[in-house]
Amino acid sequence: MQDDFSVKVQLFDTPNLGECVFNSPLHKIKTVLFHDDDEGVLYDREFGKMKEYAEKTGVIRAFERAGMRRKIFFDPRWCKAAILTAGGLCPGLNDVIKSLTLTLRQVYGVPMVYGIRYGYAGLNPELAYEPIILNEEIVDDIHEDGGTILGSSRGQQDPEVMLETLIRLDIKMLFCIGGDGTLRSAHAIAEAAKKRGVKISVIGIPKTVDNDICYIDRTFGFETAVYATTDVISAAHNEANGALNGVGLIHVMGRDSGFIAAYATLANTHVNFCLVPEESFTLEDGPKALLPALADRIRKRQHAVIMVAEGAGQDLMPGDREIDKSGNKLNKNIGLFLKEEIKNYAKKIGLEMNVKYFDPTYQLRACAANGTDAVFCLMLAQNAVHAAMAGRTDILIGHWSGTFTHVPIPLAVEKRKKIDLQGSLWQAVRLRTWHKTME
Amino acid sequence: MQDDFSVKVQLFDTPNLGECVFNSPLHKIKTVLFHDDDEGVLYDREFGKMKEYAEKTGVIRAFERAGMRRKIFFDPRWCKAAILTAGGLCPGLNDVIKSLTLTLRQVYGVPMVYGIRYGYAGLNPELAYEPIILNEEIVDDIHEDGGTILGSSRGQQDPEVMLETLIRLDIKMLFCIGGDGTLRSAHAIAEAAKKRGVKISVIGIPKTVDNDICYIDRTFGFETAVYATTDVISAAHNEANGALNGVGLIHVMGRDSGFIAAYATLANTHVNFCLVPEESFTLEDGPKALLPALADRIRKRQHAVIMVAEGAGQDLMPGDREIDKSGNKLNKNIGLFLKEEIKNYAKKIGLEMNVKYFDPTYQLRACAANGTDAVFCLMLAQNAVHAAMAGRTDILIGHWSGTFTHVPIPLAVEKRKKIDLQGSLWQAVRLRTWHKTME
Amino acid sequence: MQDDFSVKVQLFDTPNLGECVFNSPLHKIKTVLFHDDDEGVLYDREFGKMKEYAEKTGVIRAFERAGMRRKIFFDPRWCKAAILTAGGLCPGLNDVIKSLTLTLRQVYGVPMVYGIRYGYAGLNPELAYEPIILNEEIVDDIHEDGGTILGSSRGQQDPEVMLETLIRLDIKMLFCIGGDGTLRSAHAIAEAAKKRGVKISVIGIPKTVDNDICYIDRTFGFETAVYATTDVISAAHNEANGALNGVGLIHVMGRDSGFIAAYATLANTHVNFCLVPEESFTLEDGPKALLPALADRIRKRQHAVIMVAEGAGQDLMPGDREIDKSGNKLNKNIGLFLKEEIKNYAKKIGLEMNVKYFDPTYQLRACAANGTDAVFCLMLAQNAVHAAMAGRTDILIGHWSGTFTHVPIPLAVEKRKKIDLQGSLWQAVRLRTWHKTME
Amino acid sequence: MQDDFSVKVQLFDTPNLGECVFNSPLHKIKTVLFHDDDEGVLYDREFGKMKEYAEKTGVIRAFERAGMRRKIFFDPRWCKAAILTAGGLCPGLNDVIKSLTLTLRQVYGVPMVYGIRYGYAGLNPELAYEPIILNEEIVDDIHEDGGTILGSSRGQQDPEVMLETLIRLDIKMLFCIGGDGTLRSAHAIAEAAKKRGVKISVIGIPKTVDNDICYIDRTFGFETAVYATTDVISAAHNEANGALNGVGLIHVMGRDSGFIAAYATLANTHVNFCLVPEESFTLEDGPKALLPALADRIRKRQHAVIMVAEGAGQDLMPGDREIDKSGNKLNKNIGLFLKEEIKNYAKKIGLEMNVKYFDPTYQLRACAANGTDAVFCLMLAQNAVHAAMAGRTDILIGHWSGTFTHVPIPLAVEKRKKIDLQGSLWQAVRLRTWHKTME
Repeated sequence: MQDDFSVKVQLFDTPNLGECVFNSPLHKIKTVLFHDDDEGVLYDREFGKMKEYAEKTGVIRAFERAGMRRKIFFDPRWCKAAILTAGGLCPGLNDVIKSLTLTLRQVYGVPMVYGIRYGYAGLNPELAYEPIILNEEIVDDIHEDGGTILGSSRGQQDPEVMLETLIRLDIKMLFCIGGDGTLRSAHAIAEAAKKRGVKISVIGIPKTVDNDICYIDRTFGFETAVYATTDVISAAHNEANGALNGVGLIHVMGRDSGFIAAYATLANTHVNFCLVPEESFTLEDGPKALLPALADRIRKRQHAVIMVAEGAGQDLMPGDREIDKSGNKLNKNIGLFLKEEIKNYAKKIGLEMNVKYFDPTYQLRACAANGTDAVFCLMLAQNAVHAAMAGRTDILIGHWSGTFTHVPIPLAVEKRKKIDLQGSLWQAVRLRTWHKTME
Repeated sequence: MQDDFSVKVQLFDTPNLGECVFNSPLHKIKTVLFHDDDEGVLYDREFGKMKEYAEKTGVIRAFERAGMRRKIFFDPRWCKAAILTAGGLCPGLNDVIKSLTLTLRQVYGVPMVYGIRYGYAGLNPELAYEPIILNEEIVDDIHEDGGTILGSSRGQQDPEVMLETLIRLDIKMLFCIGGDGTLRSAHAIAEAAKKRGVKISVIGIPKTVDNDICYIDRTFGFETAVYATTDVISAAHNEANGALNGVGLIHVMGRDSGFIAAYATLANTHVNFCLVPEESFTLEDGPKALLPALADRIRKRQHAVIMVAEGAGQDLMPGDREIDKSGNKLNKNIGLFLKEEIKNYAKKIGLEMNVKYFDPTYQLRACAANGTDAVFCLMLAQNAVHAAMAGRTDILIGHWSGTFTHVPIPLAVEKRKKIDLQGSLWQAVRLRTWHKTME
Repeated sequence: MQDDFSVKVQLFDTPNLGECVFNSPLHKIKTVLFHDDDEGVLYDREFGKMKEYAEKTGVIRAFERAGMRRKIFFDPRWCKAAILTAGGLCPGLNDVIKSLTLTLRQVYGVPMVYGIRYGYAGLNPELAYEPIILNEEIVDDIHEDGGTILGSSRGQQDPEVMLETLIRLDIKMLFCIGGDGTLRSAHAIAEAAKKRGVKISVIGIPKTVDNDICYIDRTFGFETAVYATTDVISAAHNEANGALNGVGLIHVMGRDSGFIAAYATLANTHVNFCLVPEESFTLEDGPKALLPALADRIRKRQHAVIMVAEGAGQDLMPGDREIDKSGNKLNKNIGLFLKEEIKNYAKKIGLEMNVKYFDPTYQLRACAANGTDAVFCLMLAQNAVHAAMAGRTDILIGHWSGTFTHVPIPLAVEKRKKIDLQGSLWQAVRLRTWHKTME
Repeated sequence: MQDDFSVKVQLFDTPNLGECVFNSPLHKIKTVLFHDDDEGVLYDREFGKMKEYAEKTGVIRAFERAGMRRKIFFDPRWCKAAILTAGGLCPGLNDVIKSLTLTLRQVYGVPMVYGIRYGYAGLNPELAYEPIILNEEIVDDIHEDGGTILGSSRGQQDPEVMLETLIRLDIKMLFCIGGDGTLRSAHAIAEAAKKRGVKISVIGIPKTVDNDICYIDRTFGFETAVYATTDVISAAHNEANGALNGVGLIHVMGRDSGFIAAYATLANTHVNFCLVPEESFTLEDGPKALLPALADRIRKRQHAVIMVAEGAGQDLMPGDREIDKSGNKLNKNIGLFLKEEIKNYAKKIGLEMNVKYFDPTYQLRACAANGTDAVFCLMLAQNAVHAAMAGRTDILIGHWSGTFTHVPIPLAVEKRKKIDLQGSLWQAVRLRTWHKTME
């Protein structure tokens, strides 16, 4: 059988600007680890799924491995780079900015790193947000603070106009830290550059506190946000226990995906009900009715904690949903809605319930990254610089099975990642909350 | 002049159950510090004020000093004690419960300590909340958690009914941890006991996260609540800086007194506007108009943080205010009101402003006490037990000029403590925020 | 090519007690996710390595996937289970104990769960540590505390004696939470049971704050420990900056593997020197001499932070190493050694250096698990119960490429996992610290 | 009696530079609170002590009240000011620096504020540490970090040389943040200036994490340090509980005064033994023997936590004590000494004890100030500027009975504040620990 391994690997396609002719500044150091372009990180992680796909298509899918290359496309000494952050805040933005800056300057010797202000708005000269110049001194302490020193904004700008700005400033590599809206704009700039034959590398660094980008195991800031919920859950538990028939109701982020709510439920096991966008529920009728189950729990245990993601139960509320500048459908406030519904139901059935409402949304995302995320941000940024230097473009830096990868942007933004209700995460939630609410 | 100190001290009157005939269990230990009943802690702390009062009345006012007495009224071995917590949560409740229990049992040898459930409701037999029995094992770890292991509730019960329960359970001393509503009920029980000639000691332990009780320098939980705001302020600052013309708006507790808002403003100096119940303001017109000042700040600095206490600006909102079970006038939500007003004003004057709203109310009060408060809670509770043992009743344990005191309950609940707009606290706030908003 | 996928998967062998004839209690619920025994999680994650191995052996290696099985070996209603913790503390022990208890009782309906006291010592009747009975009430809040409610100990007991105890108590499944010493003892019990034909499931839950167990991506508590170093690093940085030529020297865990030191270096980027057991260094001479490099750094930047793992530089210190009860070679204290060496060197070369020494060892491991680890502990424990119920034995629950797995204990304890000096973790450290120390 | 208040107040003498002829910049604002020079904050807080002193001396002692004056000595527009930090780190140093800078610049309009580097060393031109210029931008975020942005050092410089530097830089006011060594040097500069007739205001801001300065209720940073011990105590408790006969031994600051150890013991009530410099103890013999009491506790409860201040038990250790640069007698390490003694004693009496050693010294003092301390630092600094502007010199800003005061430096540094073993703090400690160790 030894001679029989005939299946081929097929890497997800990652665009290149051209041949790499320069040596990496570290090429003479023996202990440095260089990766070749053909190292593939397997997409399928179970033998069964890999085999099924291989039998159907003749190939095994894999991601190109991120990392330092021995030969690079740009001459670092003649490079200018730019960094921008767009969309909502997320823990770790400053860690990424710091590590991009230091890797560009100290590892590769890039002389000039611009910080673009307020996301893509900073690339539109009409809005006149002057870029700032990033160096060791400016970024020294920023990893200890939440937020982003560059500012952020929502909404799109004309790709041609932005490309024009990049060309005018002689920027060879642009690092775009943001969610799917941001990544789509990065793709548009890369396309525009390709059309005009301009050799600019556009690298995305995926940022979504909701952890809802596909082809990526995790995104930075998510662990911090989950961790930050644990104190809120303890507070809600204390409030619920401290009052007669207390109900702690916690509203967290999660526009289309309930990952934060689900992980938070597992992270501090005082939660009894976990409501996410992926699983519908009703108020009073049917087998998935929340309010009677809550009343049951209150009658038996005199207190309860409910965790609700912002995108859950949208169908229960009347009226249409607004659209934000990034084109996202805005959710109606399910937290405040449930607060009123619980009060009304309690009055209706004649059972006292004291609802205490928590909405820690901004606190979860505006804090500094914890240790786990800080390490992740640092390595994401190092790999982003390696990718840009090696002439990759229109990709983002992903993480898969413990390894950093190159993921084509169009692939990643095709659709949002959601909780698989048949998967092991949701099963763990169910085993934790199901019995509690049934008992 | 040496022979001329003829002014007399006059202690605030503290009721006693009768003569103390038993020895303290520690009376033989030389190193123990016993206080006499006539030690007075001066009410006036400035010479000028003391002199003015002495010239008017011939006396110098002072509080009776709290602390262990050599002779005590009750025989500890034949004592039963009870503890209850009423009103909203406050950091440190469990610290007080633990320290009361341990001091009663381990220092004095009281054999039975009841924990009354859900505040005064637990003294109404009709509601049938069985008391729990407190001992070393039950209280061992509770100081590490927020909330109250006894539960709490609002509202009043008939003093006669409660007294009946105390008599039936043979409880000699009742410790009531709560705010002014709770203290008024404690007073009513003490009065009822006096009328019937029953020797029960009722001791109040003042709990108000708003720090709004008179004749007391500080109340437990307040420092913790202020400390807990600092992270929220940093988050609001990060959100305000992270967006175009960002406004971080933070709504905190403070029904009638803005102490939390004022101290928080000093504790994390990113706050630019501090709105409290004690100082009125307007929205658009007049010299104290918030919105034009905010617009100015945004135009000049592109970001701002506003701290608003729940009782501020109540006159700006239409409609009547509801009353809660404890008889408190409920505030309308000034935070959400301001959020909308800022948005409308921004639209009206054509200036983009991105408001991020924070309401950490329950998180500030449901957390565990920090070190400062934990020490304070422990000493409050020790002194409360000393007072009850010495036969004091209808008093609360206060703290004045660094010393624990006995304060008659009726004196303390006469009116609420408020920020003195001419005092040094508000001056410090003004010096911090005034220039920022004017610059 | 479609017909050509002839390579076979080979699962790491996991012992079974026998045929599973009972239905899972949840077998009728449609939404529950059951895994089959032949689902394999690929061991190789890169195509190249998988191919190389397949060409050599004809097979692709994989782990058996953990998770709930539709058919189980034990009848839960007639099961007794036992849990023990052994070795040093690690954040998350109580999370695992809680989740094991709740999953056994609430998901499967196991009526009796014993908590064995002080590790394997609790299975030796001569030492007379009575087991405690675990239930919902006892475990309710324990996840909020560090340590282990069961106590722990080091050292071995006779497997036959322990097996005898298990038989006498009619325990069908034993969960052993511990490091490699603990796992070896678990293996010995499983072997003894097999020899005597007793159907007892022994399941290991790997605990090593050093993250040094092979065939496992991560172990619980590690993220928490790394996170806990970040404040210490900031303090060391502040001390180093606050004094003339300040040197912050931090000594952390890491007996044979420097993972904590390496991740901590990436987690708070104030560290300039990272010393681990895997990479040797010298004091004064040669290209890897620490002290001259430190002096250089001090001359140029006036402050430095050094992170040293306990197992680093053992060859630099004179004398022999002691052996602890678990048979581990004890390290000599490299932290205190370096502190003196730096002082002596400073005096020798006439350069003032002010060394501030930090040893947060126990603080890193005795704290409660953070959110990330809490989720991990919960899922580890759920999967451990599923494995025991399905009749697996002599395995531990691993985690590989994001999925929980069954790993044969002998495989996992063959050798310790160490930092690969050619791998991406160490490269990230090098890119962060190398330039700083060279500049 | 009304006409009979003939006793006089006597303020502690506070030197003045001369007559105040300029108006405060805020003199026209009606709501600003100005204090007169003759407002006295009573030194005695108990009537009995005040009376006793008055009868003996004919006067009542009081501190001059700190605060803004309507008339000031310096013309702010022509003023330069300088700030320095000396001695060990303490939480809140940066808060004080920030608030001094902002009050000087924004409230008074002082155009130039120097930050002197590395304490008094920065005033010695031979050492050539260039001062930095402090402004809004530099100090904006510094309150969120521990340490001091100015650096610090120990040891003295020649007062004449320092005065020369101040004159050369045309500095009119010098703020010295430090402990008693620092304050003595401040006094020496003030004396030198007086002798030469130079009108320079030297204001001390007392910094001692040990809280050991007399005539002052509290010093900044102390609350933070106490708070920071609580997690360490929980960790020590967990380690003690997690092992067979575990002993958690915690070594904290407290050179001559055990305030941190005593408050920490009250702040997290897991401590069983509290050892401070003020109370001697023995190892094996006599009524105050630690080791037999520890063995008792271990036999009965199987775990114990010991808190030891660095200055405790110095007489138990052989050898002489070293002297540091500031002239302080250095303590020998009682923590490591006890660790060995406990081990030896355990071996001697044949009782297993597992000692876990914690030394969080630098972590307690290098962290950022918590909310309570941050407020305190801000108000200290505002009052320091008010005092300098009003021409006070050779004083420090104190805090007494809740009010900020002016305290003559020579008075404050006469001797160190120590725990009164007959006072209420130590009594509270005794009531907490005495029974536990006796039971």
